[in-house]
Amino acid sequence: MTSVNHPLGRRLRMALIGGGNQGFIGRVHVMAAALDGRAELVAGAFSSDPTRSRGAAAEFGVSADRGYGSADELMSAESRLPADQRADFVTIATPNHTHFEIARGALGSGFHIVCEKPLTNELDQALTLARLADRVGNVFAVAHGYSGYPMVRQAREMIAAGELGRILAVRVAYIQGGAWRQQAGQPPSRAAWKTDPAQAGPAGTLADIGVHAFHLLRYVTGLRPREICATLARFHPLRTLDDYGHVILRSVDDALATITVSQATHGRLNDIRLEVDGTRGSLTWKHANHERLVVRRHGQPVQVYERNQRIAYSDTVRAACRLPGGHPEGLLEALANLYGDAFDAMVRRADRSADQTPRQPLYPTIADGVEGVYFVHLCLASHAERSAWKPWELATVRGGP
Amino acid sequence: MTSVNHPLGRRLRMALIGGGNQGFIGRVHVMAAALDGRAELVAGAFSSDPTRSRGAAAEFGVSADRGYGSADELMSAESRLPADQRADFVTIATPNHTHFEIARGALGSGFHIVCEKPLTNELDQALTLARLADRVGNVFAVAHGYSGYPMVRQAREMIAAGELGRILAVRVAYIQGGAWRQQAGQPPSRAAWKTDPAQAGPAGTLADIGVHAFHLLRYVTGLRPREICATLARFHPLRTLDDYGHVILRSVDDALATITVSQATHGRLNDIRLEVDGTRGSLTWKHANHERLVVRRHGQPVQVYERNQRIAYSDTVRAACRLPGGHPEGLLEALANLYGDAFDAMVRRADRSADQTPRQPLYPTIADGVEGVYFVHLCLASHAERSAWKPWELATVRGGP
Amino acid sequence: MTSVNHPLGRRLRMALIGGGNQGFIGRVHVMAAALDGRAELVAGAFSSDPTRSRGAAAEFGVSADRGYGSADELMSAESRLPADQRADFVTIATPNHTHFEIARGALGSGFHIVCEKPLTNELDQALTLARLADRVGNVFAVAHGYSGYPMVRQAREMIAAGELGRILAVRVAYIQGGAWRQQAGQPPSRAAWKTDPAQAGPAGTLADIGVHAFHLLRYVTGLRPREICATLARFHPLRTLDDYGHVILRSVDDALATITVSQATHGRLNDIRLEVDGTRGSLTWKHANHERLVVRRHGQPVQVYERNQRIAYSDTVRAACRLPGGHPEGLLEALANLYGDAFDAMVRRADRSADQTPRQPLYPTIADGVEGVYFVHLCLASHAERSAWKPWELATVRGGP
Amino acid sequence: MTSVNHPLGRRLRMALIGGGNQGFIGRVHVMAAALDGRAELVAGAFSSDPTRSRGAAAEFGVSADRGYGSADELMSAESRLPADQRADFVTIATPNHTHFEIARGALGSGFHIVCEKPLTNELDQALTLARLADRVGNVFAVAHGYSGYPMVRQAREMIAAGELGRILAVRVAYIQGGAWRQQAGQPPSRAAWKTDPAQAGPAGTLADIGVHAFHLLRYVTGLRPREICATLARFHPLRTLDDYGHVILRSVDDALATITVSQATHGRLNDIRLEVDGTRGSLTWKHANHERLVVRRHGQPVQVYERNQRIAYSDTVRAACRLPGGHPEGLLEALANLYGDAFDAMVRRADRSADQTPRQPLYPTIADGVEGVYFVHLCLASHAERSAWKPWELATVRGGP
Repeated sequence: MTSVNHPLGRRLRMALIGGGNQGFIGRVHVMAAALDGRAELVAGAFSSDPTRSRGAAAEFGVSADRGYGSADELMSAESRLPADQRADFVTIATPNHTHFEIARGALGSGFHIVCEKPLTNELDQALTLARLADRVGNVFAVAHGYSGYPMVRQAREMIAAGELGRILAVRVAYIQGGAWRQQAGQPPSRAAWKTDPAQAGPAGTLADIGVHAFHLLRYVTGLRPREICATLARFHPLRTLDDYGHVILRSVDDALATITVSQATHGRLNDIRLEVDGTRGSLTWKHANHERLVVRRHGQPVQVYERNQRIAYSDTVRAACRLPGGHPEGLLEALANLYGDAFDAMVRRADRSADQTPRQPLYPTIADGVEGVYFVHLCLASHAERSAWKPWELATVRGGP
Repeated sequence: MTSVNHPLGRRLRMALIGGGNQGFIGRVHVMAAALDGRAELVAGAFSSDPTRSRGAAAEFGVSADRGYGSADELMSAESRLPADQRADFVTIATPNHTHFEIARGALGSGFHIVCEKPLTNELDQALTLARLADRVGNVFAVAHGYSGYPMVRQAREMIAAGELGRILAVRVAYIQGGAWRQQAGQPPSRAAWKTDPAQAGPAGTLADIGVHAFHLLRYVTGLRPREICATLARFHPLRTLDDYGHVILRSVDDALATITVSQATHGRLNDIRLEVDGTRGSLTWKHANHERLVVRRHGQPVQVYERNQRIAYSDTVRAACRLPGGHPEGLLEALANLYGDAFDAMVRRADRSADQTPRQPLYPTIADGVEGVYFVHLCLASHAERSAWKPWELATVRGGP
Repeated sequence: MTSVNHPLGRRLRMALIGGGNQGFIGRVHVMAAALDGRAELVAGAFSSDPTRSRGAAAEFGVSADRGYGSADELMSAESRLPADQRADFVTIATPNHTHFEIARGALGSGFHIVCEKPLTNELDQALTLARLADRVGNVFAVAHGYSGYPMVRQAREMIAAGELGRILAVRVAYIQGGAWRQQAGQPPSRAAWKTDPAQAGPAGTLADIGVHAFHLLRYVTGLRPREICATLARFHPLRTLDDYGHVILRSVDDALATITVSQATHGRLNDIRLEVDGTRGSLTWKHANHERLVVRRHGQPVQVYERNQRIAYSDTVRAACRLPGGHPEGLLEALANLYGDAFDAMVRRADRSADQTPRQPLYPTIADGVEGVYFVHLCLASHAERSAWKPWELATVRGGP
Repeated sequence: MTSVNHPLGRRLRMALIGGGNQGFIGRVHVMAAALDGRAELVAGAFSSDPTRSRGAAAEFGVSADRGYGSADELMSAESRLPADQRADFVTIATPNHTHFEIARGALGSGFHIVCEKPLTNELDQALTLARLADRVGNVFAVAHGYSGYPMVRQAREMIAAGELGRILAVRVAYIQGGAWRQQAGQPPSRAAWKTDPAQAGPAGTLADIGVHAFHLLRYVTGLRPREICATLARFHPLRTLDDYGHVILRSVDDALATITVSQATHGRLNDIRLEVDGTRGSLTWKHANHERLVVRRHGQPVQVYERNQRIAYSDTVRAACRLPGGHPEGLLEALANLYGDAFDAMVRRADRSADQTPRQPLYPTIADGVEGVYFVHLCLASHAERSAWKPWELATVRGGP
């Protein structure tokens, strides 16, 4: 179990931006951040509607004077508070098109950041944020929660240790059916902004879940893209953006990866599957069965790693578990692992005596966020040119596991 | 999602007894109780060793002056605190043989209680507590966390609504492999007390997990036992108590239920399976796949209910979900559902204007706890008489779903 | 793959008794027996109705003069045919109550026998047949087809080789829903005789599938029963015999086995599950996934053996496979393996120069058949005495794997 | 169960070409063809080595004078036999590069044909055969055995009936690990010809299993291709042909299908997965679980159709089942269904009074075979032009289900 550390002698103070509009994601961030008792929510701007935003404070257990009317107001007021009161970090859980301005403001005000994906709608916005974050030196995490699952981390470490040999091929599928929530003649759902180009940006499903799939691929295998070929589709009649897509990625060392994303598959809830083929073995991980990792080697029985202390591949994996094996964990714990990793980094920043050597963190960083935006950008370009191969020209930061 | 209610205008205050000795269960209670922001840990007596107990306060984020040296000290000090500071409830997460004294003390001091199972080691202790609790009128929940899973509650409601017709047969299996942790010549593990009769009581596996299996059966189906026939075994060479057992239960309306428990099955982690046969349909639920409920009817396709808002059978089930379907939840959320139900009851007690009509709560009550102890008692008696059928002579309180 | 041997320079000649009344089991025997080209159907008495029996010959591809009007007629006529024409063996696929007379006749006429289960309805009939068979020395196989699955044989051999250590506990469940086929007010189905005591004998589900479950337990683990405790029930309103049962078996070396059988579980087709716990490991096999064998050891990843040449435990297992791994086999092949084993024995008898040393065959013998009848007999006795433990007093022949 | 019809008053006579070199596929054809007693093997040319070919006759139970030294010899001799003795059909189970000559010869000699896939190595050969077959009018089936599974046929019929609405997307994956059988420094395996361009033709995995995947897509959904985009790879160091490929297909009505094939995925045996998305529902079928068909509709419980009479969608599906539900069938039965369909057609040809109206048969025809070869041809062309979209310019014959 993650030990409950209070190296600062106190809990970290969280401010939440967004989350107040019936969505679930805001509360999930609060639960995940607070799970290990290392942080507590102290402030929020919960809605783009100032009245509703302030009104939500009580619901979130935040004192009325720190329930702000807007993100700007929050950042401006919080940064004027004494150091022993003001928020340490902001979590940005708003629609995509607002991430850029809010994150820029938060960086400018000195807050650490945990930001929902996609980082931004436009590539130049993402690059701008990355430069700014680099200058400011603050912690900037992107909420690719799936990378916090213990067995995803075990997959990553087994591959890094060479257990599968050289990676040859990867298949990621992320399949949902949410498009069919929308019925002709009905009012749009609370997530309707996700299909509105003005808010969601130029891509639909690709930006909503494609970036998760891409990050999972990069996080687990470390494959560096050389070129990408994408084919998108829009199947649901009420959609204006893609709700289906298929991407092929060739890596610099000639591995072949495919990413398939759908929000138009009836009845599939949030179905992620990852398959990795190497020269010495293959592995499979499924979100619907996320506590198991299946490893195969030619001529041997299949090996199924069920999450528990005794088969954990390393201390990193062990530290990502809170409950004993057989006691189901879930997405909350995975996201809490990301927060925990980010908290470690925040504490290190605060502690001037700590080792400040740059290291590749376990949590997805702004560099991962930029990659995701670039991935979307390149896929749109490829699709526009009839699935032409487009070279990957962004320096990849994450060096693989 | 469970809405975050603060009907008292504040969080409930939790005191934890136990949990400080490397075990996981204390922290799990803290995380579950605090998950929805309705409660916070304010005090604790974390260990039977006074120094260690006080020392654990920092680790749990509790102020030093409320990290007590013993349960007695905690209850005595907390009950002297002003009403706006003292703990509202205590969670008892200590070895079995201490439950009775601590719970009796807590009832005497006016605290609400959440107590680990089994309620007590001896039947007369359980009955004494039940009488006391009845007189005091406080909330007394027993931590049968599995009854908090949304799909377990869905099973319960479908059965209550007659979807399966009359219940004919039930099969519960609860299979673990923990006995094999213990190796000859090695120091005993932190859970070693569970196999020590002086602490664990007269039964081993039966008391440790058998009571969970029995409660699950009762909670989901409401079957009232008429008689019980039990066969126990001790397979692991270092065990002194049963680590395997098999119980047959005949209900007052002639249904037949079997409960199989094992802690001696290599490599099985925490494997619960529940199968219910009725005159109109059958269902299956597995802990390893706890977000799915499988319902079968002769001549029809199998129906698999995957936890999500749209297939939830009722508002009760819907309220037990925090994340959208496909976003895995786990045991934490299940236990948090129990806490939430108990919190509702605590708040109702505090609010004199609220409806105080007794109702059968969703959370397992002390009556369920007594039943569990009686179940163990009767199984031991049956086994001692070569699996003789023993009549169930305890009035059952839980009337089924 | 089983090699196609014709050591006699010809195919063995099969006579089928039963199978003509819309049932599937007769045809299955013909397909299984002929699968490897080692036998062909040459004669039959397909129905208890002489006209229908003769009429079915064409349908089975049997020449009209060898489509007999009754089993007696068949045996009498075939035994008068020249040695190079007459049937080598008879397969008995008739209702239970006729097995005894037919098998006795077939033994008397010198035919080898493959007989459906249960061997007979009455224990003394079974013992009589066993004595007669022993005197005659012919091959007498009982159609426990599940023991022919490659992964069942692999389980058996792994246990025999000590891979699981000493066997402690076994759980067999055989769950069906067929009882619900029968609706009040409808004509009885073709299998209705199975619920008629005059034909099916004194037990229903116990005799129909309980004997399969018992044989599976004995075949795979070799456990020798010391005593048995049984509890039966009749749940379906139109049944007169048991359709549900639960048996506990204690072995001579204090292992505990449970057998649960049901034909009253809505929507379950033919669901067998076998779980074996040993001191060094545990295993699970499920009929619905019969090409996989799951082996667990404490502290190690789960191992899944998927049927294929490379993970076969021995030549015996390898010989039981016809198709490469991943190319699904089924019950036909399992039954064909039994026939193949019986054919080997028949050929050995015919070849006077062959080694005639008695050996324990892979196929279920008449001794297994007798055990099954005794098992039913003892369960009925135990149930009649309120689940009293009844000592097993039959010498067990099968010595375990 | 398929009834055993002998409308000609006799069994059909089969000649097998190939199958004698340790491979399994020849025997599988013999078992499948003979399974229902409608055909029997009477002749064969089992190997390209004349001596070995003749020698294999005994092993296959064929009389010595009809064990021929070559395919030519077989066809020439058999066609000179009297009509009541000569083979009715030949099954061609030889390496790919020989299919063309043998099939041309067989058509010329008037035999019906069942031919292994791919039909030919070169497109012009396939087209030549198709023209010839059309002129001759004989039955010509191609052995895409997976289309014989009952639940594949059920999927096809549900789609044809509109149960899923308009088809939007299809995902087929066919994953094997066989490439890793081959180790550097070891003698090539019996299937080594499959990786030799001189025998296997210009494509490896694509021709070996890609054509199966493509046929499954076409058979179940009836989607008509408009254009194709393919990316191939060769991962195993000892391979000279592709062992991995990824194909995107856009249909004439803008559905998007993907086909992924691999023989380089460690430990995967013969793993086919089919997913179909429509406007009203989606379905999933997996080879490893071929007796189940999973259908999902937004907002409803998942429906799992387990093969059995009572959930069969139509008589066609029911006729494809031999055993009751829960009694596992396998690939043999699936292939036997193809043979059965082809036999029906052969019998219709023989019976001049029968309805000779052309109809789309259930079994894969030479038109399907031609499509497969064209599919390979187009994929190779697309891959050669860096995954360019290549228009499908072959008239598709199979009009969907």
